[in-house]
Amino acid sequence: MTVNAMTDTLNRQVLIDGATRLYAIIGDPIAQVKSPGVFNPRFAAAGLNTVKIPVHVRPERFEETVRGLMAIGNLDGMMVTVPYKARVIPLLDRVLPMAAKVGAVNAIRREPDGSWTGDMFDGRGLVRGLHERDIRLDGRRIMLIGAGGGGSAVAIAVADAGAAALTIFDVDPAKAEALAARAAKAYPACAVRAGAPAIDGHDMLINATPIGMAPGDGFPAPLDGLTADMLVVDIIMKPEVTPLLAHARSLGCVAFGGRVMLEGQAEEVARFFGIGGKP
Amino acid sequence: MTVNAMTDTLNRQVLIDGATRLYAIIGDPIAQVKSPGVFNPRFAAAGLNTVKIPVHVRPERFEETVRGLMAIGNLDGMMVTVPYKARVIPLLDRVLPMAAKVGAVNAIRREPDGSWTGDMFDGRGLVRGLHERDIRLDGRRIMLIGAGGGGSAVAIAVADAGAAALTIFDVDPAKAEALAARAAKAYPACAVRAGAPAIDGHDMLINATPIGMAPGDGFPAPLDGLTADMLVVDIIMKPEVTPLLAHARSLGCVAFGGRVMLEGQAEEVARFFGIGGKP
Repeated sequence: MTVNAMTDTLNRQVLIDGATRLYAIIGDPIAQVKSPGVFNPRFAAAGLNTVKIPVHVRPERFEETVRGLMAIGNLDGMMVTVPYKARVIPLLDRVLPMAAKVGAVNAIRREPDGSWTGDMFDGRGLVRGLHERDIRLDGRRIMLIGAGGGGSAVAIAVADAGAAALTIFDVDPAKAEALAARAAKAYPACAVRAGAPAIDGHDMLINATPIGMAPGDGFPAPLDGLTADMLVVDIIMKPEVTPLLAHARSLGCVAFGGRVMLEGQAEEVARFFGIGGKP
Repeated sequence: MTVNAMTDTLNRQVLIDGATRLYAIIGDPIAQVKSPGVFNPRFAAAGLNTVKIPVHVRPERFEETVRGLMAIGNLDGMMVTVPYKARVIPLLDRVLPMAAKVGAVNAIRREPDGSWTGDMFDGRGLVRGLHERDIRLDGRRIMLIGAGGGGSAVAIAVADAGAAALTIFDVDPAKAEALAARAAKAYPACAVRAGAPAIDGHDMLINATPIGMAPGDGFPAPLDGLTADMLVVDIIMKPEVTPLLAHARSLGCVAFGGRVMLEGQAEEVARFFGIGGKP
């Protein structure tokens, strides 16, 4: 490629024109999301005049903002992040089985008839991302911190992937109990219970809370008993290295941040949006 | 700049991240708008992590869509195009004097207190764009076709710029009469009247209707009497050469398309949005 050709490409690629189609990612806060950087190169590679934009939805204006976005003629779908993964469901016409099991969605799309369908890819994304790194979940004994939208998706997906045991902790014990009951019912072969955030007896720790995003947050759970042979996952996207990940790595643990889940789910979300995927 | 450095720039510039701020342009249809291509290079040159996106607003969902856009936390302003330049006014908290005179806005912004202000730059944009091409409007006798949002802005701005006479035609005679009355009151030195689309007695023709956008549209007015010494402006953005412009140029007229207005107003709209302008 010559310098002139690159200049041309450069000039063309920064242009959004009137015919550009939109996908949004909605959340509060929004500045930390990595999803536009994952999807926009994919759109460009597929030759689509489509961009993914971050949209900051204020909690007190949630319904009005999301209904407005859903009414936009050239917006074909949205990803949904914290704290809206469960809250968006009443605005949808249809929720697919995995999302119904989880009780939350992270992607919604407009169907050809104008109706909206939601599905959940967070948990499947984490499982896929770990598999792509040759880490399997069969037989694992997992301590999961957080039973919100992300935690629910992870619980269902790791049980689905063959985990032997799953302990769920949430600062709201009722949330942990409800999620444990749901996962246990759907996956009777997995020993699911709500319990204290104790690492003993487990070989994997997953943080699915936002604790670690803000400076000074510290750890999402006491880390006594964490040893080098344990696997640690923190689904937080930003910072890339949370206090939990830094501590786990200092002990010698294999530890992954949110990017492993993001990359794993991007593939499945792309298919849900009808924009193709890797073979 | 080396090829490697350009590759880096290329890779960085196509990325939209979570912290990107948004401006929208709203209209129906939307695919023809050129505004993102004018504004996005300007944002990049100013070092801003900001993009302008096209948003297709369906007429039957206008209020819901626009109120939703206004509620987005990282959306700072919008440009407004056909057919919403008057319709958006009831949703605003404040309309600046030029827009009040015109009865329509083409740019709205969120103020620091969260309220929304609108102003109108279409007509000023055309006058500025022509001035930058050394064409002045003082003493001109102008035939204006179209008394909608764009036509109203043009009428007020050309009268403001010193036109000697202004004849306004619209397929809805009441609209032409109302605009003529408003312009005459604001600019008593200009001979303003509503009248038939007859070119005789004028030295400038301006089309401010959408006629010419769709294939097979033909001319917005009978062109008998158009001669090479007359100036012709068509404010349509796409196609770049409308049937009117092609015909006028074939006669030897100096004739400008919508880009002259777009470029002229981009400067003033950029200032309104607080993103700086040319010195």
